[in-house]
Amino acid sequence: MSGNTIGVLFRVTTWGESHGPAVGAVIDGCPPRIELSEADIQADLDRRRPGSLASASPRREADRIEILSGIFEGKTTGTPISLILRNEDADPAAYDGLRDLFRPGHGDIAYRAKYGIRDHRGGGRASGRETAARVAGGAIARKILARAGIAVFAFTREIGGIVAASLDLEAAEASLLRCPDPEAEPRMVKKLDEVRAAGDTVGGVVGIIVRGCPAGLGEPVFGKMDADLAGALMGIGTVKGVEIGAGFAAARMSGSVCNDPITREGFRTNHAGGILAGIASGAEIVLGVACKPIPSIGRPQETVDLHGNPAVITIEGRHDVCVIPRIIPVCEAMVAIILADHLLRQKAIDK
Amino acid sequence: MSGNTIGVLFRVTTWGESHGPAVGAVIDGCPPRIELSEADIQADLDRRRPGSLASASPRREADRIEILSGIFEGKTTGTPISLILRNEDADPAAYDGLRDLFRPGHGDIAYRAKYGIRDHRGGGRASGRETAARVAGGAIARKILARAGIAVFAFTREIGGIVAASLDLEAAEASLLRCPDPEAEPRMVKKLDEVRAAGDTVGGVVGIIVRGCPAGLGEPVFGKMDADLAGALMGIGTVKGVEIGAGFAAARMSGSVCNDPITREGFRTNHAGGILAGIASGAEIVLGVACKPIPSIGRPQETVDLHGNPAVITIEGRHDVCVIPRIIPVCEAMVAIILADHLLRQKAIDK
Amino acid sequence: MSGNTIGVLFRVTTWGESHGPAVGAVIDGCPPRIELSEADIQADLDRRRPGSLASASPRREADRIEILSGIFEGKTTGTPISLILRNEDADPAAYDGLRDLFRPGHGDIAYRAKYGIRDHRGGGRASGRETAARVAGGAIARKILARAGIAVFAFTREIGGIVAASLDLEAAEASLLRCPDPEAEPRMVKKLDEVRAAGDTVGGVVGIIVRGCPAGLGEPVFGKMDADLAGALMGIGTVKGVEIGAGFAAARMSGSVCNDPITREGFRTNHAGGILAGIASGAEIVLGVACKPIPSIGRPQETVDLHGNPAVITIEGRHDVCVIPRIIPVCEAMVAIILADHLLRQKAIDK
Amino acid sequence: MSGNTIGVLFRVTTWGESHGPAVGAVIDGCPPRIELSEADIQADLDRRRPGSLASASPRREADRIEILSGIFEGKTTGTPISLILRNEDADPAAYDGLRDLFRPGHGDIAYRAKYGIRDHRGGGRASGRETAARVAGGAIARKILARAGIAVFAFTREIGGIVAASLDLEAAEASLLRCPDPEAEPRMVKKLDEVRAAGDTVGGVVGIIVRGCPAGLGEPVFGKMDADLAGALMGIGTVKGVEIGAGFAAARMSGSVCNDPITREGFRTNHAGGILAGIASGAEIVLGVACKPIPSIGRPQETVDLHGNPAVITIEGRHDVCVIPRIIPVCEAMVAIILADHLLRQKAIDK
Repeated sequence: MSGNTIGVLFRVTTWGESHGPAVGAVIDGCPPRIELSEADIQADLDRRRPGSLASASPRREADRIEILSGIFEGKTTGTPISLILRNEDADPAAYDGLRDLFRPGHGDIAYRAKYGIRDHRGGGRASGRETAARVAGGAIARKILARAGIAVFAFTREIGGIVAASLDLEAAEASLLRCPDPEAEPRMVKKLDEVRAAGDTVGGVVGIIVRGCPAGLGEPVFGKMDADLAGALMGIGTVKGVEIGAGFAAARMSGSVCNDPITREGFRTNHAGGILAGIASGAEIVLGVACKPIPSIGRPQETVDLHGNPAVITIEGRHDVCVIPRIIPVCEAMVAIILADHLLRQKAIDK
Repeated sequence: MSGNTIGVLFRVTTWGESHGPAVGAVIDGCPPRIELSEADIQADLDRRRPGSLASASPRREADRIEILSGIFEGKTTGTPISLILRNEDADPAAYDGLRDLFRPGHGDIAYRAKYGIRDHRGGGRASGRETAARVAGGAIARKILARAGIAVFAFTREIGGIVAASLDLEAAEASLLRCPDPEAEPRMVKKLDEVRAAGDTVGGVVGIIVRGCPAGLGEPVFGKMDADLAGALMGIGTVKGVEIGAGFAAARMSGSVCNDPITREGFRTNHAGGILAGIASGAEIVLGVACKPIPSIGRPQETVDLHGNPAVITIEGRHDVCVIPRIIPVCEAMVAIILADHLLRQKAIDK
Repeated sequence: MSGNTIGVLFRVTTWGESHGPAVGAVIDGCPPRIELSEADIQADLDRRRPGSLASASPRREADRIEILSGIFEGKTTGTPISLILRNEDADPAAYDGLRDLFRPGHGDIAYRAKYGIRDHRGGGRASGRETAARVAGGAIARKILARAGIAVFAFTREIGGIVAASLDLEAAEASLLRCPDPEAEPRMVKKLDEVRAAGDTVGGVVGIIVRGCPAGLGEPVFGKMDADLAGALMGIGTVKGVEIGAGFAAARMSGSVCNDPITREGFRTNHAGGILAGIASGAEIVLGVACKPIPSIGRPQETVDLHGNPAVITIEGRHDVCVIPRIIPVCEAMVAIILADHLLRQKAIDK
Repeated sequence: MSGNTIGVLFRVTTWGESHGPAVGAVIDGCPPRIELSEADIQADLDRRRPGSLASASPRREADRIEILSGIFEGKTTGTPISLILRNEDADPAAYDGLRDLFRPGHGDIAYRAKYGIRDHRGGGRASGRETAARVAGGAIARKILARAGIAVFAFTREIGGIVAASLDLEAAEASLLRCPDPEAEPRMVKKLDEVRAAGDTVGGVVGIIVRGCPAGLGEPVFGKMDADLAGALMGIGTVKGVEIGAGFAAARMSGSVCNDPITREGFRTNHAGGILAGIASGAEIVLGVACKPIPSIGRPQETVDLHGNPAVITIEGRHDVCVIPRIIPVCEAMVAIILADHLLRQKAIDK
């Protein structure tokens, strides 16, 4: 796994900065003869747009995915699938104020330390824009998973401390906040309004469920199924924690409670979250992902400039209040990519 | 990353089952001309033994590491370092009762699904015995890190719901429970006694701190520093959750609190946990690792046999009550391995 | 190394079919702060065009490289460099005759066996068009090598049995046939005219010299410098043999002749071709590459169709007579990519 | 592919120096439930011994392979197979004369440049002893190939300029020189006697044939079947050239001769050597491997010492005259390892 590629057999490489000409992905290792069109991928990308449910506005150039290779007469050929998403023309001068300042909570200062140079416009490579390329790769992964009967669902488990107490996946899909608890959703909306009014942002927790994953997917020691999922999800810019099954709550359980009894019909409980010793057990895979608040807030913040001098930074423009609904398709994409890779790897050693 | 190898440049491959002839590791990519002896590695292995602080008993064959290659006249040569740890002769018949039964909370059923065959004796490849090979690899990684002034410390953050409220790393090193809070430790000991008396086990949380990590280590999109650390730690058998910096608490913070102000002297707070956009920021790296209770408990449990028939399983023998103190050197090893790999990768692109 | 990516730290992934929308490459792992423009890459691409020395015609869209990412204000940023080369609009109907027939000497039948589907238009992924993406990647590799004083030269060693007896690299660069022997060149031209008149094609041998490669680059057992070079060169569609130093002639030498005596000034001879035990010795790296004749000939050929029925195939259009001059920049690119990767890997373990 | 590991799914890592405690290999990715014993591997190792056909002497410790993991009740479990071969106790003092001198034709000077340190005893990591670990890995690969009906044969094509004119594989197997031409063999023996008497060594060419390889194995651009085979074979210490099918002779052919006509019964000729555009065509895979003469000769040679001072080196002891017969099992092993890897990779994308 290099810095911009993930996967062993099903491999996704993303490229592009938020204010360069385009972002994109190369997906290698997709099996041949799978029906795939730009519309398949576009549907997932559209879920990533703010207020996407309500949106009926015509699509802009910057939102349209183009497939450049790997498809012939509507089917994958087994060769690399190259995807491109043009960026909109932006006024580079709009970012001149950020050229010499490091935004708190952003990667600016770390990129500078690593490379000694950085594209300061809109976050460059570390921008949320890059996640569009992951979602596009995930859309292809989902095609592979669908053939095997595997489905990935992500939803809002918590926003700003308000917890979804019920799990209605249909309700989540219909909800702008992807909230699976219709009672909690209005309280979440109210919370977001308050935070917005305060010029602030707020974090939350995404829940993920994988249905239909066959027992046996995974690896024994490194690159375990849970390890790969944790790495893939922690690699989303906003994520600060990942848990499987009972997760952090398991740390407070006794073994007699935490162990899932095995019955003829399957596991009686699912504290393991569908993974035992790094290998799928056949139960639902259950994940939780802690997302920090968006760091671009509407208040002045303390920072330094390139030369280390103290400065105050104010980030202009209209910003999202909470990353949760937009990050959900990205979480689904990362999980789908890992599962597709392990599915192919398992095929290689199966009878 | 294959199923038994981790790392891009600094690569650790482990092999071996708990009741086969031996376990071991091959460490490839270690720079040449580093002083390294079996004693260096043995010291870390000894920390992994139960009650290791008190132990003054003579070392058994099964605990002695042997270096088979890659060292010449006391220094690394740059070629692979092969390490072996012989297993003690065990009576295979002692495990006959487990041949056809799946232990709840263990990987037995998942291994069976994956491979259609498994070494049922003592957990086979999924045994804690395998982590000795990781600790040995980690000992070499620490040698590399030490040259760059990087140090990794893991300690007990919580056992059975009892939280260490202070952070005294010297106290932790002197404590059998690796507890950094001398006041909490006796309460933890009491809790463990109660759990043991009940024939049960209990989970906990490990804290990890990395000091001296230079800003810039990490990668931008996949294989980020936090992603690699999360994957490496989640790949330890007992781990159900990983968090960086404020972790799950960040999900309940507002941006104005969570963002770490940047000053001439460094970051005013460290909610980011030393990593921004996947790249080390120069602050301390702070991690938390949730460990489930050990699944081998002293009570009868509900399960099925190989043919799916209901059964009751009772696991004989003397078992640990809590994995925490023994898992701490394993956590340190995994973090050290990831950091050593990123350190070498950064050298490749530095001026 | 997957099927479409080469390299460990400096990684080139190519994508695209000859008659899809575009071909391109993603170059990952390029160090930051290297000056790079589209013109740098275009210069190498232009060398790949037929009759490129004489060409003064305006460049067509299909020949213009576009950089989509990884460059900021004229310098590399360390993030992936995405390159795209649009294909010209072609009339797909022109290839209808080839849809159901396998061209002898081409990959058609093997692709069909592998994937069960193939883009039959102009060779698809196996087309020489794909090598443009490699040349583009090689142009970036050469930038990295130039900083270390390493230069790669390829030239025509032999065409249609006519051997270049002298080695004048300046003459080669000025020659349309890249022939380093001004006396042999007219005979090669005459040979090519004869072959063209016969509706046939002819093979040849490319020579490669690397100057300035520091001793120490390479690896000890797998992925040796010579192994990686051989693999990279054999991976060019037309190549049927690769040799290092004395190559196949070494098989007929005695040890007392083949061994290169070592002197204070360097090696007295260079039968080793600059590589000992897989590691650069500091001498010039010398390679030879056997290229088969282009399989698209102007004569009817015996084949079968998709259903295995016998058929006669006639490939229409104007074809090249010999791949040699056009393959030379591709050979240089592959060698440069391997060397750049090993250069970065060596930096990682150097003091 | 790192410096000591080869393969994507079927991965062989070797370790060990000729005069360290042992050499060995870790084979990862072997499918489960394949019958495998030490005797299976030992048989291939024995073929590698000098004069192995005639040998009836009891086996020494240094020649006995031990399996340390990955096998349970006689079958592979899918986990890593660790193999070890102890080295015999050697008198390190016997090599004191080589400590400061670089042997011409050996890797000594290159290792020194790379690592700044080297194990000078008997070639260390670059010794032929390391190839025993490859042969052991190859023995397991052959088990995988056998299930798919694939067989690999290597034989002597040429020694000291004497060419085997016929191809009788049974004769080759019965011949101490692995010569498939019973008429050429006595001339080869005579040649070797002459060279030995002169205190010299001589090179040769190995031929390889793969039977039963299904069409479709391979990859389209990088890591092609021919590229991987060339890289694997060039990575054997003694190899200076690799060719596929017609090889270097193809460079002198015309297209109308070189193209293999396709018929209902298969290819009419096999100049392609069983691989088209990097993918197996279903025809026999045919390879040629040029081996240089063994560099350790019984004559004084010109060299320098560690400080660059001129010196004369004389290599004591009894040495082989020609590497060919002993290298043949190594060539077979490398080919088998590559084929096994591609076989598993193809399974992953097959229906």
